[in-house]
Amino acid sequence: VRTVAASAALVEKGNYRHFMEKEIHDQPDACQHTLSAYIDPTTGHVHAPNGLDFTKFDRVQIVACGTASYAGAIARYFFERLAGLPCDVEVASEFRYRQPAVTPNTLAVAVSQSGETADTLAALRWCKSQGLTTAAVVNVHESTMAREADVVLPTHAGPEIGVASTKAFTSQVAALTALAVAAAAARMRIDKAEEAHYTRLLLEAPRLIAEATQMEDEIRALAPELARARDVLYLGRGAMFPLALEGALKLKEISYIHAEGYAAGELKHGPIALIDESTPVIVIAPSDSLFEKTISNMSEVAARGGKVILITDAEGARNAPKDAKVIVGPSCDPILAPLVYAPPIQLMAYYVAVQKGADVDQPRNLAKSVTVE
Amino acid sequence: VRTVAASAALVEKGNYRHFMEKEIHDQPDACQHTLSAYIDPTTGHVHAPNGLDFTKFDRVQIVACGTASYAGAIARYFFERLAGLPCDVEVASEFRYRQPAVTPNTLAVAVSQSGETADTLAALRWCKSQGLTTAAVVNVHESTMAREADVVLPTHAGPEIGVASTKAFTSQVAALTALAVAAAAARMRIDKAEEAHYTRLLLEAPRLIAEATQMEDEIRALAPELARARDVLYLGRGAMFPLALEGALKLKEISYIHAEGYAAGELKHGPIALIDESTPVIVIAPSDSLFEKTISNMSEVAARGGKVILITDAEGARNAPKDAKVIVGPSCDPILAPLVYAPPIQLMAYYVAVQKGADVDQPRNLAKSVTVE
Repeated sequence: VRTVAASAALVEKGNYRHFMEKEIHDQPDACQHTLSAYIDPTTGHVHAPNGLDFTKFDRVQIVACGTASYAGAIARYFFERLAGLPCDVEVASEFRYRQPAVTPNTLAVAVSQSGETADTLAALRWCKSQGLTTAAVVNVHESTMAREADVVLPTHAGPEIGVASTKAFTSQVAALTALAVAAAAARMRIDKAEEAHYTRLLLEAPRLIAEATQMEDEIRALAPELARARDVLYLGRGAMFPLALEGALKLKEISYIHAEGYAAGELKHGPIALIDESTPVIVIAPSDSLFEKTISNMSEVAARGGKVILITDAEGARNAPKDAKVIVGPSCDPILAPLVYAPPIQLMAYYVAVQKGADVDQPRNLAKSVTVE
Repeated sequence: VRTVAASAALVEKGNYRHFMEKEIHDQPDACQHTLSAYIDPTTGHVHAPNGLDFTKFDRVQIVACGTASYAGAIARYFFERLAGLPCDVEVASEFRYRQPAVTPNTLAVAVSQSGETADTLAALRWCKSQGLTTAAVVNVHESTMAREADVVLPTHAGPEIGVASTKAFTSQVAALTALAVAAAAARMRIDKAEEAHYTRLLLEAPRLIAEATQMEDEIRALAPELARARDVLYLGRGAMFPLALEGALKLKEISYIHAEGYAAGELKHGPIALIDESTPVIVIAPSDSLFEKTISNMSEVAARGGKVILITDAEGARNAPKDAKVIVGPSCDPILAPLVYAPPIQLMAYYVAVQKGADVDQPRNLAKSVTVE
């Protein structure tokens, strides 16, 4: 372990009560710094750093643990849809032991804030031993993964002190989303004009994330009720599904409420049995092509007495079922939605934990980096 | 919908209190009938039925919902490890809408008891529209999926009445495991002697499943305590991980206790924060190469005051931490473990639900077949 001298400005809480609160508000900057490693704003060109050439690969295998695996699961939607590049995502502790059948032209991508996560590192090494090209999306650029991977794909979130990851997560999502666009351009799935379009969208992300953190007061107002909940379900479709998993994980980690994320379409295949008057269901659904399907899932929840909290944009709010509590966030292109709708779910967990008097920055039983198996 | 005249013997409860209990005990027969469609016991040959030729494919894509998706997730371990055939598994409601990047020589396999599950059917049709060869693992052989898929891969569980699937699930696991062996043989990853070895193993499954249902009394004895739990975690590694997901789903469906399954290695990346003295943790870990890792995860749970219930075999029991409650099942080859350790987790959910006075065969909010989106 190398000790890094971080500047005081980066590791002090300033006017915030907790590092986690500060780090949630750091996200526009963290995202901007990260994207600057992938985007040339003058040419509109998105590039994969450090010579990574996406024309050499016919598949991407992402390995990660916890929150980082959800960043990978979000990116998967974009690698496949934009770049037509098949992408698998697996938790490292399963991948490394199961003798996976990987194919030769696969790019292996490890995602880890610290670059030291034991299972992810072992998975990275295994991929390397199979002759695969390896890349590491890491926030600590002098970490073991950064040293051992063929290509470093940096995030620039700055030091993250809160145990529950926030700005490292959105920085991972930003880096991987930019990479998916770079892959699409390299593989000629999008032309120059489309690339420039996505560049413009990505460059709007910091402003939209900042706007999303303004939802704070509305979210804080819901905390007392949520803090009394025994269980919470989080639902989403498409790239909002892994964000639902991340929302549930955040709530688990710092408020100790048993939250679980589900693909909205899976609700009827079991978890709907849990729903009664005491079960809040948080639905993350900015308006998109799947919005109507998700509304129909929400109506089923409401019909069973479940309390629905819908996190959506202005257009989604207009079409929301009237028994849902609606929190309105910024309108944005679907490619930005995982970044823009991350702050509200992080703030939700944060205010519930504060309401419960939990130790937000040092939740029980958890370590910042899991460097043992 | 076609009405099928099922014989009275198959749809009556006999001496059982609920259909679910009967169907759990039907599993040795259901498994045997299913395997007989895939195995020739005299030659020791395992075959893919209906002309399915595994040498034509370089990848398998399984699509399913709920319990059937966990059967697929179990099979994935065997397709990759035994047959060296890359295998992806995805819930159909996500797969069908996300414009997945599928490659041409992929075998698409839909798994559904009823053969009518709306999202799975839509995913199957989408795969067909992409020119993929499609197969359907279905229990209702006159279903829409059976008619529309290129190849029918039958399960022979007989009619399943309980809403929470049991014998249909193990029949799906049996069929898919046999197919993985067939794929390994067809792709010459195993020789005749190894194929015969796996055949002998598979033919032992019905007897071992029957033996596993004898764990009933021990499991019933734990029900009063589990029925008081607010939350339950289920942990497993390897093919026991999807079985942990299935165990959690069963408990959710019929007892309305919020249970969640996790890969044991992910515990430290978040869910361990939930653990306190009131949280039972059910660990499914027959002794195998990963047993020691799982024991180490159990010790972390115990150190945080969590109550561990370990479901294992005799050898695992000898190496169990002394603060764990141990339930001992049959010893078996790892390829059979998902089949053999299914009855104990099903019985666990069943007795907890009975203890709570829940309507086991008709849980609230759930339908047997989800034929709408």
